[in-house]
Amino acid sequence: MKTQVAIIGGGPAGLLLSQLLDLHGIDNIVLERRTRDYVLGRIRAGVLEQGSVDLLRAADVGERMDREGQVHDGVELSWHDERLQIPIKDLTGRGVMIYGQTEVTHDLYDARDARGGAVIHEADVFAIDGIESDSPVVRYLKDGQEHTLECDFVAGCDGFHGPARKAIPAAQRREFIREYPFGWLGLLSETPPAAHELIYASHDRGFALCSMRSDVLSRYYVQVPLTEKVEDWSADRFWDELKMRIPEDVAAHLVTGPAIEMSIAPLRSFVSEPMRYGRLFLAGDAAHIVPPTGAKGLNLAFSDVYYLHRTLDAFYSTNDTDALDAYSDLALARVWKCERFSWWMTNLLHDFPDRSDFERRMQKTEFEYLLQSETARKSLAENYVGLPY
Amino acid sequence: MKTQVAIIGGGPAGLLLSQLLDLHGIDNIVLERRTRDYVLGRIRAGVLEQGSVDLLRAADVGERMDREGQVHDGVELSWHDERLQIPIKDLTGRGVMIYGQTEVTHDLYDARDARGGAVIHEADVFAIDGIESDSPVVRYLKDGQEHTLECDFVAGCDGFHGPARKAIPAAQRREFIREYPFGWLGLLSETPPAAHELIYASHDRGFALCSMRSDVLSRYYVQVPLTEKVEDWSADRFWDELKMRIPEDVAAHLVTGPAIEMSIAPLRSFVSEPMRYGRLFLAGDAAHIVPPTGAKGLNLAFSDVYYLHRTLDAFYSTNDTDALDAYSDLALARVWKCERFSWWMTNLLHDFPDRSDFERRMQKTEFEYLLQSETARKSLAENYVGLPY
Repeated sequence: MKTQVAIIGGGPAGLLLSQLLDLHGIDNIVLERRTRDYVLGRIRAGVLEQGSVDLLRAADVGERMDREGQVHDGVELSWHDERLQIPIKDLTGRGVMIYGQTEVTHDLYDARDARGGAVIHEADVFAIDGIESDSPVVRYLKDGQEHTLECDFVAGCDGFHGPARKAIPAAQRREFIREYPFGWLGLLSETPPAAHELIYASHDRGFALCSMRSDVLSRYYVQVPLTEKVEDWSADRFWDELKMRIPEDVAAHLVTGPAIEMSIAPLRSFVSEPMRYGRLFLAGDAAHIVPPTGAKGLNLAFSDVYYLHRTLDAFYSTNDTDALDAYSDLALARVWKCERFSWWMTNLLHDFPDRSDFERRMQKTEFEYLLQSETARKSLAENYVGLPY
Repeated sequence: MKTQVAIIGGGPAGLLLSQLLDLHGIDNIVLERRTRDYVLGRIRAGVLEQGSVDLLRAADVGERMDREGQVHDGVELSWHDERLQIPIKDLTGRGVMIYGQTEVTHDLYDARDARGGAVIHEADVFAIDGIESDSPVVRYLKDGQEHTLECDFVAGCDGFHGPARKAIPAAQRREFIREYPFGWLGLLSETPPAAHELIYASHDRGFALCSMRSDVLSRYYVQVPLTEKVEDWSADRFWDELKMRIPEDVAAHLVTGPAIEMSIAPLRSFVSEPMRYGRLFLAGDAAHIVPPTGAKGLNLAFSDVYYLHRTLDAFYSTNDTDALDAYSDLALARVWKCERFSWWMTNLLHDFPDRSDFERRMQKTEFEYLLQSETARKSLAENYVGLPY
């Protein structure tokens, strides 16, 4: 089999890249290790930056998002009962879109289907060869058979655990990592959200987040130690813990209900450089992970895809090989800034068991500086709505 | 001997408080452990916030400062050869005044002399009694004799090592501390400054600062390990090290010369709470230390003095005891924000030997975010010119 761009990974990054390349007349095939149902069953983030919204519209997959998504003009922080509303639209002229990653993925699959896009599921890539040549070959197993996909370029959109990053020789890669000493326990429930806007709550007991997917579907998180096990948590225990961490009047009106899903995810900052090696390009979690505080993961994958589809388009339309060389630095400049913001938001809002009294007070003072300074709030807002591409 | 306010410490904080109280008709006596020449010989910071400038003018000690000081409308940061000018006046509407602490202290002594202010030198305070009563007594040694000073209030402006803070029972105090793993080696020389504005330079070899006291007097610093000894440094070695850390074209035009003074100071963040206990009030370094990055030490002492003179004036003019109770929280709210900024600037610009690769990249990204975002530059600027009282 042969194509121009072999895309490894059929999550939102791979599918959006596939769609954008297709719209630019660039032939591509997506190889996804899991089934479509599995991919669509994953619960992920739900906040889209304006840049992501614009990109989805440009890819002709914005219709349902524009109909069903909720535009938020602000976001709230709290410190025990002290609340700080950040009017992001007033401060930056832009808002964010509440629309679950699961829904985005649905829409992308529908769009690929409508254009007859090739997405091969249960394709387990075991080798990516020839990336230093002009004709790489991706080798995968499907239904017990070995297959090969010849291509001009390989796009690694296969997440943190996928094979793409590892195809870059270890000596040519540099990895940066920060593991946080806690995770997020998440609960999804068919209940109305606690508030119209997201509430990022800091508390001596630990961080909590009130978020939502729609008017009838809410997503909540509480910070937990890494030793915690999800099976030790009932929905009732979760609700009790959440109520202690969020402002009292929000807790008083919180509508609780059964958990549709509960899971624990560790928090990690990670970047692998470069994001391009020969004919292999990385995008999204394959190259970098952010802690979820600030909702940057999906958005950062989309900004990679934005740069990458333009890079490949420049190559195919004008044979611009400089664009190929520029991709890694271009993408990484924005990646690092989003890493910085996610790290800063994580540092601001969580309880770090090993922090000194001085460091804890610095953390509280950061919150108080936000309370006092419109400039500080604007800085948070411009990062939250998304730095320019 | 008897007075209304016994001021311990004849540095700039104590002298300014003395002057302001006197102008409000409040009787006071300053007790200084050292000689006047010793106090005037200390080399300290040289950047005054607008609020400090306004306060000195209000205290009738601004005349020479307004004549000889230099108003700066900006400040520069650098990262190796990458330079970032922060136009603080454009961003905030305010500038800073370059005028050495030594000169401020001179002017304050002159002002106290002119008004017949009582400043007792070589007065070694060994006990501060009765601060929980309405009539404290300060006991000190001078010329081998014990003396007592009865008063209504004690103002501890006696620095980090002075006795005032320690007069608060240990069980009633809470201390916050961060020791940095490096110091600043400073050199004073009769040479024209390297540039019109201050340059805060970050480099893999460590931080450096180009600052000045006047057109013919420059003050430079380089970050050094705490193990470094000043006697191992010649002026030539200092200049060589400095030139490697500052932008190449600044180094190329640097005028060097003999050192008038060289010394090493460790960097420390420190806050002691509360800043008032009974009839004892702390101001300046007696209650808190900031690392010198950002030039907040003297300015923070002056904002304490601002709050304190108003507190005491409110008490004497309207018998407002609520003002006495409010002083500590009022002063500390600003103290912590300046601690935050000084800590942030220190973290941004220094080489921390124990930082991980990820943390180093976060540090560089903070600089790159400043390069990209006017909001980030404005946040730096509003802190640098001084948060409002």
